[in-house]
Amino acid sequence: MNKETTIAAISTAPGVGGIAVVRVSGQEAINHVNKVFRPRKEGISLSMQPGGTVLFGTLVQPDGEVLDEVLVTLFRAPHSYTGEDTVEISCHGSLFVQQQTLKLLLAQGCVLAGPGEFSQRAFLNGKMDLSQAEAVADLIASTSAAAHRMALGQMRGNFSGELAALRAKLLEFVSLVELELDFNEEDVQFADRAELKRLSTEIEGKIARLAASFSLGNVLKNGIPVALVGETNVGKSTLLNVLLNEERAIVSDVHGTTRDVIEDCVNIEGVTFRFIDTAGIRNTDDKVENLGIERTYQKIEQASIILWVIDCTQISEHIEWLTERIARRAEGKKIILVFNKVDKVNQDERAVVDNLFAQFDAERIYISAKKRINTDELQRALLQAAQLPELQPGDVVVSNMRHYEALSAALAAIRRVNDDLDNNLPHDLLSQDIRECMHYLGLITGEISTDEVLGTIFGRFCVGK
Amino acid sequence: MNKETTIAAISTAPGVGGIAVVRVSGQEAINHVNKVFRPRKEGISLSMQPGGTVLFGTLVQPDGEVLDEVLVTLFRAPHSYTGEDTVEISCHGSLFVQQQTLKLLLAQGCVLAGPGEFSQRAFLNGKMDLSQAEAVADLIASTSAAAHRMALGQMRGNFSGELAALRAKLLEFVSLVELELDFNEEDVQFADRAELKRLSTEIEGKIARLAASFSLGNVLKNGIPVALVGETNVGKSTLLNVLLNEERAIVSDVHGTTRDVIEDCVNIEGVTFRFIDTAGIRNTDDKVENLGIERTYQKIEQASIILWVIDCTQISEHIEWLTERIARRAEGKKIILVFNKVDKVNQDERAVVDNLFAQFDAERIYISAKKRINTDELQRALLQAAQLPELQPGDVVVSNMRHYEALSAALAAIRRVNDDLDNNLPHDLLSQDIRECMHYLGLITGEISTDEVLGTIFGRFCVGK
Repeated sequence: MNKETTIAAISTAPGVGGIAVVRVSGQEAINHVNKVFRPRKEGISLSMQPGGTVLFGTLVQPDGEVLDEVLVTLFRAPHSYTGEDTVEISCHGSLFVQQQTLKLLLAQGCVLAGPGEFSQRAFLNGKMDLSQAEAVADLIASTSAAAHRMALGQMRGNFSGELAALRAKLLEFVSLVELELDFNEEDVQFADRAELKRLSTEIEGKIARLAASFSLGNVLKNGIPVALVGETNVGKSTLLNVLLNEERAIVSDVHGTTRDVIEDCVNIEGVTFRFIDTAGIRNTDDKVENLGIERTYQKIEQASIILWVIDCTQISEHIEWLTERIARRAEGKKIILVFNKVDKVNQDERAVVDNLFAQFDAERIYISAKKRINTDELQRALLQAAQLPELQPGDVVVSNMRHYEALSAALAAIRRVNDDLDNNLPHDLLSQDIRECMHYLGLITGEISTDEVLGTIFGRFCVGK
Repeated sequence: MNKETTIAAISTAPGVGGIAVVRVSGQEAINHVNKVFRPRKEGISLSMQPGGTVLFGTLVQPDGEVLDEVLVTLFRAPHSYTGEDTVEISCHGSLFVQQQTLKLLLAQGCVLAGPGEFSQRAFLNGKMDLSQAEAVADLIASTSAAAHRMALGQMRGNFSGELAALRAKLLEFVSLVELELDFNEEDVQFADRAELKRLSTEIEGKIARLAASFSLGNVLKNGIPVALVGETNVGKSTLLNVLLNEERAIVSDVHGTTRDVIEDCVNIEGVTFRFIDTAGIRNTDDKVENLGIERTYQKIEQASIILWVIDCTQISEHIEWLTERIARRAEGKKIILVFNKVDKVNQDERAVVDNLFAQFDAERIYISAKKRINTDELQRALLQAAQLPELQPGDVVVSNMRHYEALSAALAAIRRVNDDLDNNLPHDLLSQDIRECMHYLGLITGEISTDEVLGTIFGRFCVGK
């Protein structure tokens, strides 16, 4: 990335809309747009306007032909998203106009922005720290209220604020310890060891809490994993389609249709569930199918909620065999027994099947996936099983794997600091461990970063943001 | 439509983007947004700002939770697209934020905008005439340079200007004639009949030229119709896929696979071609297939260019039979003979097949659709066969069926006026025919319109424009 260039990209969603916005940022942004923009009001020039000005006018091709009638909004550095001079062009939303507008700007000397390059510039210009910039991508990708709240809080600096406070305390801490190093021979202690121990314990608690919040954050961001399991041909795929409201999984009457694990997310009353269809479990010698079943077991272990789908019309002879296999892997998870095809049996027949699971302590729902009987009841049961804590604005929850890894490393370092203090280790070792903890916290906010890390992070953004 | 309401809609393309724009228009637009928007700069209120102001701040839910950080742009009536007070909210482009922003506005009293309602209000508030408003929809839908130029010209008032000039002349004309009516008994002639005749002939010429431009306008807007014809199994569908660059038509080795006519557009160097795959023509008793062949003949008649696809590997015994059938319907159209599967024959074999068409005066291209040999040559031939006049900025070309129909009716009326003058018919009949011509021209610009017509026109728009 070269901060000297002026970048341009379409910032609105790809496709045809009423309007589209093309964003230009960099030292020459105003100059470049000025060359192709004619304000309607005469005697006015874009480049003479103060920041925060909106002008109506036309985009004009080099040969004088009008390309479009547009609104142009001017932002002057540092009062823009990127911290640079920025111009936003609001043009008509046809693909042709969007492309031609971009072409026109490139011809003036703009460079096509890379993914996330606007946000990366905002970071490099000190408009936001790295975790805030990452939150922008999460915010754009968020599909549920909780994921949105989490990303917005992070973007607005809740997380950065906590980290900054922790680092400030550690810095004060390490300064005192390092001051002692200068007076090594004299064996003075500027830092009260009892006070230090109290502080490092407090910091360990805070970092541990942040790291622990990742399991919630991950679920909020990526959805609560729900595995649909059961014997072959009991209607798992049909149920998945109903839950996803579309024809994603292949449904057929042939046993063992679903060999690959299919995942998809759906939002039920603001909570995202990630449904995982699995291969039907049965005693088989088919090698490929057994591979699928093996993956089913893995998915059970990764899921938080298990929907065990049972066919009411069949008295399975493998209940015991199956119970042993599913229950062993589902320990500590919520299991919901879903009795499918209830429309095809009478009360007595249903009771017989039900009875097979009499000893099984789990919620029971009776549905017909095909006829959509009671499927809303199943959704209610899922919401109840989810039992997510209600996030409050201001709550800090870690949802980013990179942050989690850095926090875990910081946690290990601060624990070593605690050990060092307990064992009265020398200043230099103590200082080194505190610095290491600070280093990992700094990785999150980007106070310490490499081009490679930045490339990976912003490469995941969409172009135009 | 109720002009008293304040409407809101997402104006950018549907889907996830870096940013999205939600537009609010109506008497209460500023009030409604003011209730949920907190400018970052303290002591500032949106409702106190002049038009053309951009403010950064947050959207806040009723419970005080921040929904997003946004840019808000204010336009005050009549200086906005709709002519009403308008606020554009540029928010983050997640689906969740877009939906919640809209919900928040609806909760304040905004009403969801219908399709094209912003443009409809612009029309009703006199910001643009009906043909200009219609051009907005065409502009957004345009995919080629020519269609774009045509729509932009119409939106910027080229067409409206011509119509207004025609109506002004007719009005002057009819005023004089109607003045004579008042002095009916005295048999005076305020309007010089020779002068009137000159004028009405000129107007007839202009209206006829506009109406005639529709065949070009329609082609520019909807693409040049190109029919792919030939015997079954010569590779028409494969060729279509190559031209369309995707797997649209079903390709198989079974004779007569393509029974339905498939159409799709592709842009070759700025010119839109509408390719029409057709059922292979052959002598068959299959009723369904014969229906398909019948439709093939119809499509040949509607096309401007015929790609007659011939299989080099087969000496067809039906060339005469086929030539007679295709040529009869292709009279006056451009025919390109496309010899397919050239990679499978040697020079001598090719010459034999070629020779079968020796008497046929048409361009010949030798390709392999499957291997993509020479298909760029075919594209070049298509471009040459298209021979569209280069549109100049300012050229008025009619591309709208509604306009064409109104122009045709206006043309019939002005021709009656000419007849009336030739036959020296009485004032009242003459006046009536002139008024009728004016009526039809007025339909185009919307000076005369009904709710039903408006509903049909704006119902075709996307929501948010």
